[in-house]
Amino acid sequence: MDADRAANGQRAVARCDLLGGGVFSDAEGRLTRPYLGPAHRRSLDQLAVWMGEAGMTVRRDEAGTLIGRYEGEQAYAPALMIGSHIDSVADAGRYDGPLGIMLGIECVASLAAKRRRFPFAVEVAAFGDEEGSAFPAAMLCSRALAGLLRQDQLPPDPAFDDALAAASLSRRDFLAARRAANSLIGYLEAHIEQGPLLESEGLALGIVTAIAAQRRFATSFTGRAGHAGTNIMTLRRDALAAAAEAVLAVESIAGAGPPDLVATVGQLTVLPGSANVVPGRVRFSLDVRAGSDAVRDRATDRILAALAAIAARRGIAADTIELQTLPATPCDRTLQGLLESAVATIGQPVRRLVSGAGHDAMVLGKITPMAMLFIRCKDGISHHPAESVLVADVELALQAMLAFVHTLAETRHG
Amino acid sequence: MDADRAANGQRAVARCDLLGGGVFSDAEGRLTRPYLGPAHRRSLDQLAVWMGEAGMTVRRDEAGTLIGRYEGEQAYAPALMIGSHIDSVADAGRYDGPLGIMLGIECVASLAAKRRRFPFAVEVAAFGDEEGSAFPAAMLCSRALAGLLRQDQLPPDPAFDDALAAASLSRRDFLAARRAANSLIGYLEAHIEQGPLLESEGLALGIVTAIAAQRRFATSFTGRAGHAGTNIMTLRRDALAAAAEAVLAVESIAGAGPPDLVATVGQLTVLPGSANVVPGRVRFSLDVRAGSDAVRDRATDRILAALAAIAARRGIAADTIELQTLPATPCDRTLQGLLESAVATIGQPVRRLVSGAGHDAMVLGKITPMAMLFIRCKDGISHHPAESVLVADVELALQAMLAFVHTLAETRHG
Repeated sequence: MDADRAANGQRAVARCDLLGGGVFSDAEGRLTRPYLGPAHRRSLDQLAVWMGEAGMTVRRDEAGTLIGRYEGEQAYAPALMIGSHIDSVADAGRYDGPLGIMLGIECVASLAAKRRRFPFAVEVAAFGDEEGSAFPAAMLCSRALAGLLRQDQLPPDPAFDDALAAASLSRRDFLAARRAANSLIGYLEAHIEQGPLLESEGLALGIVTAIAAQRRFATSFTGRAGHAGTNIMTLRRDALAAAAEAVLAVESIAGAGPPDLVATVGQLTVLPGSANVVPGRVRFSLDVRAGSDAVRDRATDRILAALAAIAARRGIAADTIELQTLPATPCDRTLQGLLESAVATIGQPVRRLVSGAGHDAMVLGKITPMAMLFIRCKDGISHHPAESVLVADVELALQAMLAFVHTLAETRHG
Repeated sequence: MDADRAANGQRAVARCDLLGGGVFSDAEGRLTRPYLGPAHRRSLDQLAVWMGEAGMTVRRDEAGTLIGRYEGEQAYAPALMIGSHIDSVADAGRYDGPLGIMLGIECVASLAAKRRRFPFAVEVAAFGDEEGSAFPAAMLCSRALAGLLRQDQLPPDPAFDDALAAASLSRRDFLAARRAANSLIGYLEAHIEQGPLLESEGLALGIVTAIAAQRRFATSFTGRAGHAGTNIMTLRRDALAAAAEAVLAVESIAGAGPPDLVATVGQLTVLPGSANVVPGRVRFSLDVRAGSDAVRDRATDRILAALAAIAARRGIAADTIELQTLPATPCDRTLQGLLESAVATIGQPVRRLVSGAGHDAMVLGKITPMAMLFIRCKDGISHHPAESVLVADVELALQAMLAFVHTLAETRHG
């Protein structure tokens, strides 16, 4: 059985690698697989074959989500859904998304090989639009499945209709992908961490406690531009020096908070941007995330107050607008507990962490209990061809997921 | 006589205003007067008229510098040259350059009206290429006059030949503008401060002690880019946070030095520059200036050491290259002393300051004793249409310059 398990982990990785290029990419020499593109459609065909071989019946829903189903002890039982996304960003890595689907397929393959049936069905879902790289929208497939999408939220561009038609789908039927919430007993997603935490602690696996709450701002600092040679230091109102203080305040406030709190200035533009001119204006972005809305909001309040104080002290006009607010999505306590037990059962330390990135689990979590398992990735790199995982870690993830499914079955039997 | 002087100061300003647009600009609705363009040539025609009316004989040298000459007690006497530049940057103010020429013309007009002759001639020079906005070169005219230009330093582009031809000049004869150093006894340039110091102290005039020494660098900080949501604060190597510390170190080191020391980060670019990505790389400029090479170099050493320390502490790779080094040009002690006496004579406080910007005086100072007078400008603004001076300040400058010329004559008589 150990040999069998090792083979499965290896196969999950090998399948991600196979889908990492060639006909499964719409770009030459790198992986780019946008929702509804030719590479996406071919990937679903390939996944359907693998799902069938693993013992599942396969269908594609009205939003283009491929769903394999392994029946429970009785027909029509509600299902534990295991899933992730098969689309990619441009010039992507091979594991962000596909690895979670392959692990779902391996779980079912293992159960089917032993003819294990549970009081619930197990479904494996391959969502198609997590990244939002094809159209100005994201998570369209999981939102449609969860019944959280309105017709007027579909991308208005005719290119969307064309892409749907090429995949034998239609705008009119899109929302029919909606799934009755009571047809699900829960959702489990395995995903690479996309960050350096697990690697830095020498851990293969992490248990997600929540998908982070997020707020995003755009700030503009306006001082006074002037000749770099003729404006003495004490009379300057240098917008960049003020912004530099702001960047360090953001770093220090986030650094002083709990580990799940992160805040980032990722964009910063200097005007006029000439080597011999004191900067008159700086625009910068601010992104704040945390495991809970409260932690995020406390940090945001402190950051915004710090920015205002810096600007006031330096005679800088500050203008901040809020661009986006997303609440935290906590994982289900019961499922999270089962996942922690499963990880402990296979002899791995239980490391809890917050997912700073969004996932389809965020959407599914609104209609069914949700849990997420993170897998260590090399150097924390993601959204890049250098994305890399260890087969041994993937094998551990598979063992933990199988243990989780078995324990869940016991709680249901009980 | 007071009324006469007031009229002259007013006229100097009015003439700058007249040259501030219309046929004296190559751009519609704003002032853009590049070297050798149509507006530059028309401005020289107008200046020649005003120089002639003031009592000067006028010629244009082989580099396109217009020179008016008011003879001394004897013909062929060496000359005190009063000058500045008539070219402008794009979308310029009206006083940066022209005001110094108009003040020279008013000085001679005042002397001629009283038929005052000195042991030296007085010449007024209108240089044509101080800003370097027309070709990839700067101060071509004063460098040619000072004999500090080599043939191979002329802009190689054919457009330069075309512009010369349109002005009836030629590349071949350009260096013939060279002037025997002993044909000059000194050079005086009046110029708007282009900074806020005089205004902040409520002073109309300032005496320049030196034109600043300058060094310019380009620095690149490379950390590690990563997802803004998944990279916890303690494991980041954020290139922008490091650059922010660098910007503040530059500000603080320059601020702790003498008042003539200035250091500026005017350009800063963040890569990849996305709101949800921790910055992996930042490129920024560094410009350091001071009244002496020693002060500039001590500050530069401290700044470069601080940058290296910041980078090392944060695990950032730093790469700094030096782009440009210009030594300080001290003003002539004797002429500066005479100018200070002249300013005191007219009842104004003697305020010494360093010119952070370059001027033609920097070039002339290499072949003849040089002095510079700064005139307060509104809000320190220059290189912008909002550039503004007070007529009363210009009048004071004129009085100081006349007093300077008379005192200089006394030292020569003695």
